[in-house]
Amino acid sequence: MTDPVSTSSARAERRAAPKPARVPLGDRPTYSSDEGMSFTLARRARKMNPSVIREILKVTERPGIISFAGGLPSPQTFPVEAMREACAKVLRDTPHEALQYSASEGYGPLTEWVAAELAHQGLQVKPAQVLITTGSQQGLDLIAKVLIDAGSKVLVESPTYLGALQAFTPMEPLLAGVPGDEGGPDVDAMAAMAPQSRFFYLLPNFQNPTGRTIVEARRAAIAARAADLNLPLVEDNPYGELWFDAPPPPSLAGRHPHGSIYLGSFSKVLAPGLRLGYVVAPQALMPKLLHAKQAADLHTPSFNQRIVHEVIRNGFLREHVPTIRALYKMQRDAMLAALGRHMPKGVLWNKPAGGMFLWLRLPASVSAVDLLPKAVAQGVAFVPGAPFYAGVPEENTLRLSFVTASAQQIDTGIAALAHVVREAMEGTAA
Amino acid sequence: MTDPVSTSSARAERRAAPKPARVPLGDRPTYSSDEGMSFTLARRARKMNPSVIREILKVTERPGIISFAGGLPSPQTFPVEAMREACAKVLRDTPHEALQYSASEGYGPLTEWVAAELAHQGLQVKPAQVLITTGSQQGLDLIAKVLIDAGSKVLVESPTYLGALQAFTPMEPLLAGVPGDEGGPDVDAMAAMAPQSRFFYLLPNFQNPTGRTIVEARRAAIAARAADLNLPLVEDNPYGELWFDAPPPPSLAGRHPHGSIYLGSFSKVLAPGLRLGYVVAPQALMPKLLHAKQAADLHTPSFNQRIVHEVIRNGFLREHVPTIRALYKMQRDAMLAALGRHMPKGVLWNKPAGGMFLWLRLPASVSAVDLLPKAVAQGVAFVPGAPFYAGVPEENTLRLSFVTASAQQIDTGIAALAHVVREAMEGTAA
Repeated sequence: MTDPVSTSSARAERRAAPKPARVPLGDRPTYSSDEGMSFTLARRARKMNPSVIREILKVTERPGIISFAGGLPSPQTFPVEAMREACAKVLRDTPHEALQYSASEGYGPLTEWVAAELAHQGLQVKPAQVLITTGSQQGLDLIAKVLIDAGSKVLVESPTYLGALQAFTPMEPLLAGVPGDEGGPDVDAMAAMAPQSRFFYLLPNFQNPTGRTIVEARRAAIAARAADLNLPLVEDNPYGELWFDAPPPPSLAGRHPHGSIYLGSFSKVLAPGLRLGYVVAPQALMPKLLHAKQAADLHTPSFNQRIVHEVIRNGFLREHVPTIRALYKMQRDAMLAALGRHMPKGVLWNKPAGGMFLWLRLPASVSAVDLLPKAVAQGVAFVPGAPFYAGVPEENTLRLSFVTASAQQIDTGIAALAHVVREAMEGTAA
Repeated sequence: MTDPVSTSSARAERRAAPKPARVPLGDRPTYSSDEGMSFTLARRARKMNPSVIREILKVTERPGIISFAGGLPSPQTFPVEAMREACAKVLRDTPHEALQYSASEGYGPLTEWVAAELAHQGLQVKPAQVLITTGSQQGLDLIAKVLIDAGSKVLVESPTYLGALQAFTPMEPLLAGVPGDEGGPDVDAMAAMAPQSRFFYLLPNFQNPTGRTIVEARRAAIAARAADLNLPLVEDNPYGELWFDAPPPPSLAGRHPHGSIYLGSFSKVLAPGLRLGYVVAPQALMPKLLHAKQAADLHTPSFNQRIVHEVIRNGFLREHVPTIRALYKMQRDAMLAALGRHMPKGVLWNKPAGGMFLWLRLPASVSAVDLLPKAVAQGVAFVPGAPFYAGVPEENTLRLSFVTASAQQIDTGIAALAHVVREAMEGTAA
């Protein structure tokens, strides 16, 4: 899954930004409304503060700003015609079922489709192990409720998906970032941190935020060591289908099926506005996840589940996804070319093999948080890297999405960004 | 909001039923899957157990069973034609916006519609105080996250909506049921229980499960005392529009706006399969609720929000809702008539002035939980009352929905239910 602007920025608040004025927090703080009535906030809610970055990023919705900030799939890729036909068919053939309450587990044929699709990818699961969720973001919320107590240790990549940090935080875990390199998390570090950890959350394919893909040898080692150590894995795979030249290596969950939970999403291969994802878990965990799902929203919209099933049931994605891959590859190439053209020496970036994001590293003296308002003033936006870290952030990193802007906009935007980067480098050198 | 069969039964599990075999719970319990890998469950998840009642109620989905169990609106009332037109229009005019990520707050015109609609009902709120949720069930989850710590006291009606108990429980509150009578909760009891309570959750109109409506004088007293005592109110109003002869008295939130959170839903006036509801809260709480919303599922499906707005924007509900009222009133009358015809002396029930549910009280010696399998064997299903109580349940109560079955089915089903009730009474008398 991906954070839209409003989401990524909400997390940014807690971590990266100069803190705004806020309600003083006492031992039993109250939250006064305009006219004196007060609510007592839960402890977890006191950590949720408004965001300076959120306010800055709101500006990016203004026409004229080129935004590399949001994780918004290109709307060109949305299958509008197929959706139109599916809506008409579902409302003609099964309107009452599509508009009625339905099972918390999800629409049966859709869970069967997911199980069959995962089998193609080498993941053997029964439909009863699939729980349809309201976007895979919800899967993270359910996993947090079922597996995290206040004070539980949870391992994450460093950096990691902001939405996961946001979903886990309300259950008050101790989050620990596993260090690594371009090939993936460091397996010895993981092993050292494993004792007492409830799980290790990973996004192995074209990660959000870094675009990193965990290499084959590292996957094999992670799965084997995790099994030895009894360390559960939570594998999040919203981007796996968006590969450019070759599919990524097989999943972690497939190597370690009884100790893994796997999350998938329709947001990147169809459309995110439908909010449709799924969690796959060992059979024994399903009643707990289902119970949490019922409490959260009873079930994912019946209508959306039936429409999406109607769209995909006859192999639509086999034709459709390659068009997304081709578009995003072209846009990645445009961004790589623009970076090469415009960025000053001392700025580094990677070459993602798929997905939506690229990771930029400024000279150590330059803070991406400080850079953001200057970039916005020049008409370009990004998300600073700091909020993506569970531990000590690398303040000189930032995330660039290459899928929302056009190739032409990418060149213009990167040129503007390079300009403010250069100024900042000169400023800190002075 | 209403619990579908699969939901109500999931709660039933924890409360009413003979406990099924389950994983032994130690101090740090693990949950083993088929082949030895284990997950450590969060403390809250250990309380979630599979349900005997859930299993029984699954049977009610079998053709031939007349179910008064589920809280399913009559599919006859679903506006299929209006939905069809709205889908076509939204996918023609704004397909990219409808299928893209969108603001966590909700679709602007829909929040404006809600604010304007509530103004008609005497509740003055700004659109910025409205948060669109994935069904109003999600509103309960968000409120729990923002306002409940482990050990917080939370007041509820006795009995109360199962879905609220289920949504609050993961945050580990101490739930306390405020006693009352047909007119509403006892105000002195509420006042005595108020100190240190995070809020009092109420469903004032045609309550689920009892069908009770809090009378005008009681509302005035509750709001005034709550304000004096600084006791926040959480007012849940999914059924308020479904009145039969006259609208219910004005809301609690309107009398106590700075100390109340209000929940509304489109499930009962349009269709539940869209999962669309909203939370209205004092301005100062909105950033916290919004943050919790982002973590839960980023946002409610953009597509569903735009379709529903398209359906309702020109006053559709003013024509549509009266047809639902008329249908449900006829079905309530059919159930009252059938109860009068078939039930033995000693069985009591109320006459709800709206909504979907009626509350039946058996002689004290008869357990509704024990009665359920016998009723199902006779082809009729209901939900026992016990799971709806936060505290000591009244085991001789049960909930009947009068909106899903036809008038003819209602008579047949009530006759069958009366038969097993009579047998049970004779059994306990013997």
